Amino acid sequence: MSAQRILVINANSNEAVTAGMAEALEPFRSAGGPQIDCATLREGPFGIESQADIESVTLPLARLVAREPAEAYVIACFSDPGLQVCREATRAPVFGVREAGVLTAMARADRFGIIAIQTRSIRRHLKALREIGAIGRLAGDRALEMSVAEAASGDATFARMLAVGRTLRDQDGADAIVLGCTGMARHRAPLETELGVPVIDPTQAAVAMAMGAVLAR
Amino acid sequence: MSAQRILVINANSNEAVTAGMAEALEPFRSAGGPQIDCATLREGPFGIESQADIESVTLPLARLVAREPAEAYVIACFSDPGLQVCREATRAPVFGVREAGVLTAMARADRFGIIAIQTRSIRRHLKALREIGAIGRLAGDRALEMSVAEAASGDATFARMLAVGRTLRDQDGADAIVLGCTGMARHRAPLETELGVPVIDPTQAAVAMAMGAVLAR
Amino acid sequence: MSAQRILVINANSNEAVTAGMAEALEPFRSAGGPQIDCATLREGPFGIESQADIESVTLPLARLVAREPAEAYVIACFSDPGLQVCREATRAPVFGVREAGVLTAMARADRFGIIAIQTRSIRRHLKALREIGAIGRLAGDRALEMSVAEAASGDATFARMLAVGRTLRDQDGADAIVLGCTGMARHRAPLETELGVPVIDPTQAAVAMAMGAVLAR
Amino acid sequence: MSAQRILVINANSNEAVTAGMAEALEPFRSAGGPQIDCATLREGPFGIESQADIESVTLPLARLVAREPAEAYVIACFSDPGLQVCREATRAPVFGVREAGVLTAMARADRFGIIAIQTRSIRRHLKALREIGAIGRLAGDRALEMSVAEAASGDATFARMLAVGRTLRDQDGADAIVLGCTGMARHRAPLETELGVPVIDPTQAAVAMAMGAVLAR
Amino acid sequence: MSAQRILVINANSNEAVTAGMAEALEPFRSAGGPQIDCATLREGPFGIESQADIESVTLPLARLVAREPAEAYVIACFSDPGLQVCREATRAPVFGVREAGVLTAMARADRFGIIAIQTRSIRRHLKALREIGAIGRLAGDRALEMSVAEAASGDATFARMLAVGRTLRDQDGADAIVLGCTGMARHRAPLETELGVPVIDPTQAAVAMAMGAVLAR
Amino acid sequence: MSAQRILVINANSNEAVTAGMAEALEPFRSAGGPQIDCATLREGPFGIESQADIESVTLPLARLVAREPAEAYVIACFSDPGLQVCREATRAPVFGVREAGVLTAMARADRFGIIAIQTRSIRRHLKALREIGAIGRLAGDRALEMSVAEAASGDATFARMLAVGRTLRDQDGADAIVLGCTGMARHRAPLETELGVPVIDPTQAAVAMAMGAVLAR
Repeated sequence: MSAQRILVINANSNEAVTAGMAEALEPFRSAGGPQIDCATLREGPFGIESQADIESVTLPLARLVAREPAEAYVIACFSDPGLQVCREATRAPVFGVREAGVLTAMARADRFGIIAIQTRSIRRHLKALREIGAIGRLAGDRALEMSVAEAASGDATFARMLAVGRTLRDQDGADAIVLGCTGMARHRAPLETELGVPVIDPTQAAVAMAMGAVLAR
Repeated sequence: MSAQRILVINANSNEAVTAGMAEALEPFRSAGGPQIDCATLREGPFGIESQADIESVTLPLARLVAREPAEAYVIACFSDPGLQVCREATRAPVFGVREAGVLTAMARADRFGIIAIQTRSIRRHLKALREIGAIGRLAGDRALEMSVAEAASGDATFARMLAVGRTLRDQDGADAIVLGCTGMARHRAPLETELGVPVIDPTQAAVAMAMGAVLAR
Repeated sequence: MSAQRILVINANSNEAVTAGMAEALEPFRSAGGPQIDCATLREGPFGIESQADIESVTLPLARLVAREPAEAYVIACFSDPGLQVCREATRAPVFGVREAGVLTAMARADRFGIIAIQTRSIRRHLKALREIGAIGRLAGDRALEMSVAEAASGDATFARMLAVGRTLRDQDGADAIVLGCTGMARHRAPLETELGVPVIDPTQAAVAMAMGAVLAR
Repeated sequence: MSAQRILVINANSNEAVTAGMAEALEPFRSAGGPQIDCATLREGPFGIESQADIESVTLPLARLVAREPAEAYVIACFSDPGLQVCREATRAPVFGVREAGVLTAMARADRFGIIAIQTRSIRRHLKALREIGAIGRLAGDRALEMSVAEAASGDATFARMLAVGRTLRDQDGADAIVLGCTGMARHRAPLETELGVPVIDPTQAAVAMAMGAVLAR
Repeated sequence: MSAQRILVINANSNEAVTAGMAEALEPFRSAGGPQIDCATLREGPFGIESQADIESVTLPLARLVAREPAEAYVIACFSDPGLQVCREATRAPVFGVREAGVLTAMARADRFGIIAIQTRSIRRHLKALREIGAIGRLAGDRALEMSVAEAASGDATFARMLAVGRTLRDQDGADAIVLGCTGMARHRAPLETELGVPVIDPTQAAVAMAMGAVLAR
Repeated sequence: MSAQRILVINANSNEAVTAGMAEALEPFRSAGGPQIDCATLREGPFGIESQADIESVTLPLARLVAREPAEAYVIACFSDPGLQVCREATRAPVFGVREAGVLTAMARADRFGIIAIQTRSIRRHLKALREIGAIGRLAGDRALEMSVAEAASGDATFARMLAVGRTLRDQDGADAIVLGCTGMARHRAPLETELGVPVIDPTQAAVAMAMGAVLAR
């Protein structure tokens, strides 16, 4: 029997982000397990920051989903762009990483926090959490207040994540932390070690759910 | 590097149920993937039906968790007995199948339904869904109204599940269905085929989340 | 002082729908009042039924908003497509008719009902009502189960609306009714007369709010 | 055809407040538009501050509504006194300014803030927002902590409103502001200019809704 | 030390209702316990059915509370009229029977049902339950559809209460029942016996809370 | 007729705590009133702090309830351990003090605060308040951050309670305070006097409800 394929789609066109995802998902690959492929949405902007960026990728994502055969899809952008339209484009399961990250955090602890890149994305988070009924479990949502470029670079990012994570844990009462961006995966494990509470990378969370969906017979 | 171990604990003492779980989880095993072991809680009652049954397994579960080394634990009983006390007994992640099943359904569709064994368990479901903030996503919760023994036997069970599933889908508007029992896994795939909406086996859902937790580095 | 302009944008490309809106808004025009213009989104599909239809108009709507000067905009489609991205495209107020219709119903009575065209749009309504926090005020959402073409034609539509409206009022306890489509405006007054409870046309509701926004100095 | 009449009732007996309302509503009047009349409830107290003040005007308001013919009524007091009993007294629409102001803010932005006069009125706001299901959209409710007399006078009021508005916007995340009093209308436009987010005068919001109700045919 | 006095105020002027309350509260009286007095609000209407009836008693109730010394007050009308203004009128605790009845049912079972006199009162119940945050615990609210006069008379009332109670229990899943009227107390015990679930008389529930308040030192 | 018996069960094995309860309940006893007995759960731990402590008492409590005849039971531990299983063990009413304390506070004021012993118990409170639907009424939950032993001793405890109570009242807007522990009863009255808002001892609240249940005929 041939392996099931999970297609993880980076909704922006930054290949470095896709490469980071592929690396974060490396441990999820095994000999007999599902095939996990990472794709870059070439039509996507270099980064997804505005609502216009989000809208610009919805139909290209749906077309990619319709075109590329897979047993499950993961839309890898913390704004979950085009989730509904992609679900319309295929009978296979489609997971959004924000939803998967948040729901997985809810399976680990009663109240969770989110580390956002910038304050303005918190607006979108709150609205989305209300929509999915998870807002009552949110302990806090706090921003690094860094540009995506800054966040991508080295030590300052981790130090800032740690500071924000401690505030979420100690002041807001978060017992699990969701990384509010697909580009923070390499900081997940060290952050979890430092904070002593589960830290969820949303792409990994969505891929785990996708594995469950394709493996269940 | 040695494989991570996920320990799935059947909270009742019915070995046939444990064997059914092991079979349902067989596709989740792969050469290089995590080791998935199923254990039976010998101190458990033959079936968990009353609140006293639930309370009787909480501390035995916690002791088993404390005693048996694993990188993640799954409490496999749709009442999620002892989830908090097991989390207190280990630093490893502990997943409850009801929580995992419901949260996974929420990652597949906006509103979900639950197929319960008996009406009286619906009371517990509603309370638990309110506690975890998922009640607003519930389309309906309907019972087979069969004894556990009846439900375990052949064709009548599937026919009844199909009838209840259709009512949840067509009348209540459920776009995903959660199996409200750990002993229905073998009906999952045929039910999904017949209904045309995702059907979630809670044990598989929890094991997928556990795989995500142990694989993330 | 020159009049303020309110631009009402029909998000589909059906000019007959735009003409129906213009007619329904005729009483809202007065000598010294705001100028109310109705525009058709030429890039839109002939009817907006699928999620792909919704996504296809978001950026065209934002471009139209950016291009056409007005003191306020109304996105006239009960799916409220592109509302956020249009708000990003202008500093002027942008109203969605679904939001405006529902919120106006909430200003008239404690619990409201929605007359939908088809069952599948109810899914979107429930999600949107949860997102905006209005779900607790919903008495019921029931579909005509007609095609848009059927709904557009004569007497059968009104009879069906009346039947659905009575069920919402008597069985679900709705004390106000929202028309879940921009093409039902001509039935509003007769339906209100027959039912004896407020019936809200969403486009009229949004234009009234837009008038409030542009008139407030 | 004769003009429809909207009767705006100041629930306190302070004629200066009524005059301020009339001035704030002047732009809403136009040649062919609805007639907008402002009335003072002579039986009302000079200011409505206590619960006893609120209760004292409910039946006088209902009697005024029953006595004075109009196509729509606006109860102009941020406590929405007597809203239900006035609705019982007429078949015409009756709007409360608190409800209308809040619901209109919800049509402008995801999360809103309220500028209250005094802390003790916040208690009433929270209860009312819970009742109408809008509490989940509240970013913050903060008081000027001025007496009504102080608030009515000049520059200090505006400076204090601006400070409170900035806190609501920057600290609480409010993307729209509702003025929690019918006597602040003249500060609406300058405050909106300074803050850069929509500022809603509740009386204007209610009158706009009333215009929508009377104009819809 | 002299006994504490609890004043139970029948908000309507029907002395027979007051007498029924006194009888239902007889078992709550004991030698050394608080003094429980029942008073009739002479200014009240003969029955409280409309919103105008409710408004007509708020200030008379507050004046009675201010005038009659007691260590605790119970407003005995299922509409909880004037609860806030009475609390403003005294430093002593004031309980409303609807609140007390509902909250007491919530202390007995997870989901409760209400037996209303008439459908139109259900509207008020739902609004009030939303206001106090109890709506999520409501299993159902169903009306006897009898006039108050009919309800006051014999056997037909009990038979109808039993039928409604069974529907609430079996169809809606109510595990406790609240009597939605102060005049049904004599049916409480037989109804509880027949239904096998707790049946709460709201006046008794409020008096029990009042006893707790005055006895706590 | 013999007196009804209310059995109040201290879920820990600390006799001093039981004695404190008995003293706090002394005023609830009267000649002709229900008999109020306090019992110590001998199998209980000396103090209930961890989840394992909670689980360890559930079945012993149920056995005690099944064994000791009473007309009503009160489980006196702010974690409400074993409430459901005790209800399964008897047809008599069983009250949990946390539920009763919170619901009674909700009958006194719109928003309540909780004084917890330690921060970690706040986690459990929030979850429980969500489960019972009371979370929307919570103004704040703040901890003394004292050990149970410290809390049991003299003046420092009261001073700390007063400080926390003032913060709950002034900063969080709590209009009633619930004591989050069964061992604080002797501070209830002085704290209420100092704070000027109702302070609820949960054991007294539960016993009052139990009195209502056993006295209602």
